[in-house]
Amino acid sequence: MTQDRFEPALISLVSEWLGDGLTTVLACGMVGARQGWQEAPYRAVPCAPVAAGDTVKVETQDPRLDVRIIAGLSQAAPADVMRGEEVQIAGFLSQQPDFEGVLLLPGTHSKHVELVDGHVQRFATHMTGEHFNLICAHSILKHSVAEGDHDPVAFADGVQIGRAGNALKRLFSIRAEGLVGQSDPVAARSKLSGMLIGAELADLDPKRPTMVIGSGALCDLYLAALLQIGVDAAARDGGDLVRAGLTKLYLTEQA
Amino acid sequence: MTQDRFEPALISLVSEWLGDGLTTVLACGMVGARQGWQEAPYRAVPCAPVAAGDTVKVETQDPRLDVRIIAGLSQAAPADVMRGEEVQIAGFLSQQPDFEGVLLLPGTHSKHVELVDGHVQRFATHMTGEHFNLICAHSILKHSVAEGDHDPVAFADGVQIGRAGNALKRLFSIRAEGLVGQSDPVAARSKLSGMLIGAELADLDPKRPTMVIGSGALCDLYLAALLQIGVDAAARDGGDLVRAGLTKLYLTEQA
Repeated sequence: MTQDRFEPALISLVSEWLGDGLTTVLACGMVGARQGWQEAPYRAVPCAPVAAGDTVKVETQDPRLDVRIIAGLSQAAPADVMRGEEVQIAGFLSQQPDFEGVLLLPGTHSKHVELVDGHVQRFATHMTGEHFNLICAHSILKHSVAEGDHDPVAFADGVQIGRAGNALKRLFSIRAEGLVGQSDPVAARSKLSGMLIGAELADLDPKRPTMVIGSGALCDLYLAALLQIGVDAAARDGGDLVRAGLTKLYLTEQA
Repeated sequence: MTQDRFEPALISLVSEWLGDGLTTVLACGMVGARQGWQEAPYRAVPCAPVAAGDTVKVETQDPRLDVRIIAGLSQAAPADVMRGEEVQIAGFLSQQPDFEGVLLLPGTHSKHVELVDGHVQRFATHMTGEHFNLICAHSILKHSVAEGDHDPVAFADGVQIGRAGNALKRLFSIRAEGLVGQSDPVAARSKLSGMLIGAELADLDPKRPTMVIGSGALCDLYLAALLQIGVDAAARDGGDLVRAGLTKLYLTEQA
């Protein structure tokens, strides 16, 4: 999307809500990336997930719009970045301000976020979702996997392999199982998913409070894998938390 | 390639060597796969890498050809297969029949082969080469890596990450390093290569004799990584060993 297409796209979504006066629009996520509408900075952790004033104002053609893009978060070492999840984290903390532990935000680029005293202490991005799609679509394993009903037994088998640190070295077995014996491509896909999710979760400490932010089938997979490895986790809806985080920031900026 | 195109392709390569009588052609590798010229069976390990008589005769139109495809090797658990490498292993054993230890055959699908008493005891396929190409070509990291001169420092940094079991969880840092600071895409590519090779080699036992079968730049990368992790390994040319293995099998079958 070229930069001049963001404003018409936004107006087509929110025009019903625009009055005669100025309407503040708070935006977060990849809209603030270099290839987004306007680049927003990163704030370096450790820090609160969002901060009043740390937004970038976007110049708009329409005088009714006051668009601000929220800064992302960055980490120097290991190098890491996030855009958008920081608002979900702020939304979560607005509801559970005393939570200390790990937030897990599954997705194409899954985030593990350590919260201490209302601040993001450190975080790590795992390319699990992208990696899974890449292997299913482009690797030789594409001949060995097929979409279909989730297979919980094959998934659990995969989680076990992944948490033991064997995801990479056992990838090819997904193909070989179909060559040396019988293999169900639908089960193989669940197993591959379990292997990559198990690898992602291998380092989690079962003694630390852990919360999954997300919803739907992917969130359920993570909850099942966490249960299997002994991490007692609950889930919060990611959409709800984005709205809670945006609202919190808006009210703070108005105050 | 469709099946009827194998014979003309072969004749165009060997016609100068064909006489009036019958010429034996021993073939190995993916020519014996299900999608190859004719499917050859797998022999289950533990076993000698090749065995006289364990070839499949191919029906040819040209009466001067006696084409035989050599069986591959399979392993039940963890499921694994190889086609072609077994001939290199046989070639290696024809030169060093008393070798006991690990043969490492780098490539798209890298093989680790444990040799005991002239037999393949077990083996493991690592999709390292395919995985590297996949990530460079199709993942979000493609924007962060570029071909160029090998960077040995970045490579060694990657090997260190990979051998510590952190290859998967640090993939995204390749991209993030370019977003939060300065990053050289050519060095980033060497680092990614080191991460995946380091992960592949992490479980090798420095106390076991180890030999790399291959040649060229990829072989040099493996030798450098092995040196870094304390495994003393020499290399043998893979092409030479294929010819040695085919010759050995041919002479055995004639005897």
